Amino acid sequence: MNHSDLLKSTYNQSNYYLANHGKRNINILKEAFETVDDDMQSDMYGEGQIIEAFQDKIASFLGKEKAVFFPSGTMAQQIALRIWCDEKGLREVAYHPLSHLEIHEEDGLKEIHQIEPTLLADKDRVIELSDIIDMKEGIACVLLELPQREIGGQLPSYETLTQISIYCRANDIKLHLDGARLLEVLPYYKKTAAEVSALFDSVYVSFYKGIGGIAGAILAGDETFIDQSKVWKRRHGGDLISLYPYIITADYYFEMRKNKMEQYFEEAKELAAFFNACHGVSTLPTVPVSNMFHVHFSYPKEKMVAVLANVHKQTETGITANLKEIDDTSCFFELSLGDQYGDVPKKQIDKVFKLLNEYLVKH
Amino acid sequence: MNHSDLLKSTYNQSNYYLANHGKRNINILKEAFETVDDDMQSDMYGEGQIIEAFQDKIASFLGKEKAVFFPSGTMAQQIALRIWCDEKGLREVAYHPLSHLEIHEEDGLKEIHQIEPTLLADKDRVIELSDIIDMKEGIACVLLELPQREIGGQLPSYETLTQISIYCRANDIKLHLDGARLLEVLPYYKKTAAEVSALFDSVYVSFYKGIGGIAGAILAGDETFIDQSKVWKRRHGGDLISLYPYIITADYYFEMRKNKMEQYFEEAKELAAFFNACHGVSTLPTVPVSNMFHVHFSYPKEKMVAVLANVHKQTETGITANLKEIDDTSCFFELSLGDQYGDVPKKQIDKVFKLLNEYLVKH
Repeated sequence: MNHSDLLKSTYNQSNYYLANHGKRNINILKEAFETVDDDMQSDMYGEGQIIEAFQDKIASFLGKEKAVFFPSGTMAQQIALRIWCDEKGLREVAYHPLSHLEIHEEDGLKEIHQIEPTLLADKDRVIELSDIIDMKEGIACVLLELPQREIGGQLPSYETLTQISIYCRANDIKLHLDGARLLEVLPYYKKTAAEVSALFDSVYVSFYKGIGGIAGAILAGDETFIDQSKVWKRRHGGDLISLYPYIITADYYFEMRKNKMEQYFEEAKELAAFFNACHGVSTLPTVPVSNMFHVHFSYPKEKMVAVLANVHKQTETGITANLKEIDDTSCFFELSLGDQYGDVPKKQIDKVFKLLNEYLVKH
Repeated sequence: MNHSDLLKSTYNQSNYYLANHGKRNINILKEAFETVDDDMQSDMYGEGQIIEAFQDKIASFLGKEKAVFFPSGTMAQQIALRIWCDEKGLREVAYHPLSHLEIHEEDGLKEIHQIEPTLLADKDRVIELSDIIDMKEGIACVLLELPQREIGGQLPSYETLTQISIYCRANDIKLHLDGARLLEVLPYYKKTAAEVSALFDSVYVSFYKGIGGIAGAILAGDETFIDQSKVWKRRHGGDLISLYPYIITADYYFEMRKNKMEQYFEEAKELAAFFNACHGVSTLPTVPVSNMFHVHFSYPKEKMVAVLANVHKQTETGITANLKEIDDTSCFFELSLGDQYGDVPKKQIDKVFKLLNEYLVKH
C-alpha cells in the first residue's frame, strides 16, 4: 500500500473524526429529501417556488436586493467578474495569488471571458488596503476571499475590510466577495452576513463548505446585476431545467447549521491549541479566525503518514486522509471543523494528542 | 383567468394525459434514490464509482471510447464545438437555424467562445447533403440535431445521414450529433445508438427528454476529445463537487425506458393519426418519426384555448398546457409520447377525439 492509500484507509476505518460533518454519502441527500413532499413541483429553468423562495431567503440573509442560485461557485464568480468588467468597459480584475479562480478553475476566467487578473499581495498573506491603493489603473473589480482558504483561512481585520470598501467606492472599483465560507467568519468578525455583505457590490456564498450541502452557490447583488447574471448563467450552461436536488439540500443544511458557526469557531481554536502543543506541529493561523486552519508538521511527509496512520489505528480517531508535502522536511493538511468534533469524547481527544506528541518527540 | 392560465389549470386537473411520463415532481428523485444504499460514496469532482461507471456504460452504449457527464447539454455542446474549432484553428461551425444553440442559449456559443455559426437549410426543413456541400469554406464542425425538435422532430433519411458523414470525413469537417433525443429516433432508423453515433465524431445525449431523468447530459467521443472536454467542463463551472443527484436518476430512468422507445414511437404514430382525423388539425410531421410531433390547428389561439379547456374538463384528459400562436388564424403545440399514454383507456381516447372534432366542426 502506498503512503496516501495507507493514510486514507486508516482514516476511513476510524470511529471518530476531528474534522468535517461526516462522509459525503448518499444519505446527505436522502435525509434532506425526507422533509419534502413527493408531489412538490420541480423548479423549471430558474422559475418555481423551490428556487425562488430560496433565492429570496438568501438575498434577504445577505441584505441584497436579489439572488440567483448557481450549480457552482466557479460559474457564479466568473460571471460576477464578467458583468463588472462589461459595466466598466475593462478586462482586468484583481485578486489574491491563491484565489480559487487562479488555481482551481483551469483559467476559465481568462479562457472564457478574456479577463486578466492582477495578483494582489504575497501568496502567504491576506490583501491589505495598501495593496489596493498601489494597484495599477484600469481594474474593474477587486475580489476578496473571506477567509483566504489556501493560507489556512486567514482574514484581514474588519477595519481593513471597511477601508478597502470605502476606497473602492470612492475610486469607482467594484468589490466582489468570495464568501464561499462567509458564514464561517461571522463569529470572528461579530457581524451579520448582511453587515459584511454591505461592504461589497456582489457576494457569492457556497452551500457545501460549512453548511454541508451537496453542491451549489448563491450569487447576490442588485436587481440589474442579478438579471444579467441569469443571462450569463444560461450561456454557461448553468440554467438547468431543475436544480432542486441542490437547492433542497442547501436549504435543509443551511437551516441546520447556520447558527452552529460560533460553535465550530470555538472548537477550531481549542483543536488548534492541541496541535500547537505537540512537538514540531504548528497551525496556520496560530489562533483560527473561522472553523478552518492548516496543520503544519516540521517532519517529512513519509514520516508523518506513518505517524498519523498509527494514531488512526490506535485511537480509532481520524485526523486527516490527505497530507501535502511542502518540502523534504515538512508537510501540512487542511482541517475544517464540523459536526463530528462534538461527537468525540474529550478523553479520546486527550488520547489522540498524547499519542501524537509521543510519536513526534520520539523522532 | 387569462387564456394560458385557463389551459394550464384545466390541464393540471386532468386524470389522464396523452403526453409525457408524468409530473416533474420530487418523487422522480425519490423513486430513483430508493434503489441506492445510503452509505454509497458521492462522486468527487468527476471521480468515483458513481460517475465513472455511468460514463463507461454510456460510452459503450454509444460505441465511443470515452464519455463525460455534464450538468447540461448547453454546456456539453458548446464545449464540443469549441474543441473542434480549436483543433482546426477555425472559429466557425454550421447548424440548423432552429438549433438549440441558436435560439435557447442566449448566444453562449458566440459570447463565450467567439464561435460564429453558419445557418444551414431553411427553418422549416432538415439539413440535407446539398446544404453541407454548398457550405462556405472554413467550417470546423457541422452539428446535426436528430430529430430536429423545433420543426416537430423531423429526420433526414439514414442514407442522407451516411452521405453527410462520408462527405464531412472526406473534407476534414468534424460532425457532431445533438442527440438530445437520440434514443427516440432509433426505432425509426432501425439502428442501434452505436450505429448512428459511428457516423459522428462527437455525440451528446440528454437524460431528461425521453429518458425522463431530472437533468444532465453525456458527451462522448475519443479519449483526447473527452480529456479536453473535462478541462472545459471545469472552466464553465460544470465540474461540480458532486453530480450524483443527476447521475443516479439518469441511470435509473435510462434502464427503465431505454427499451420503451419503440412503444412510444408506435403510440406517437397512432396518436398523430387521431389528431389528423380532426377538422382543421394536422401534425408535423404527418407521420411521426420519433416519439414527438407538433399539432397544428388552423384556428386562432383564443378559440383553441377555449376548445381544449372544454375537452380537458369534459374528458378529464389533458391534451396540452401550452399553445403557441403562429398568426391570427393558427396555433400549435409540441407533444412527446411517454409513459402516460399507455395508461389512458382506449374508450377515453375515442371520447377525447370525438369531442375535440365536434367542437372544431361546429366552429
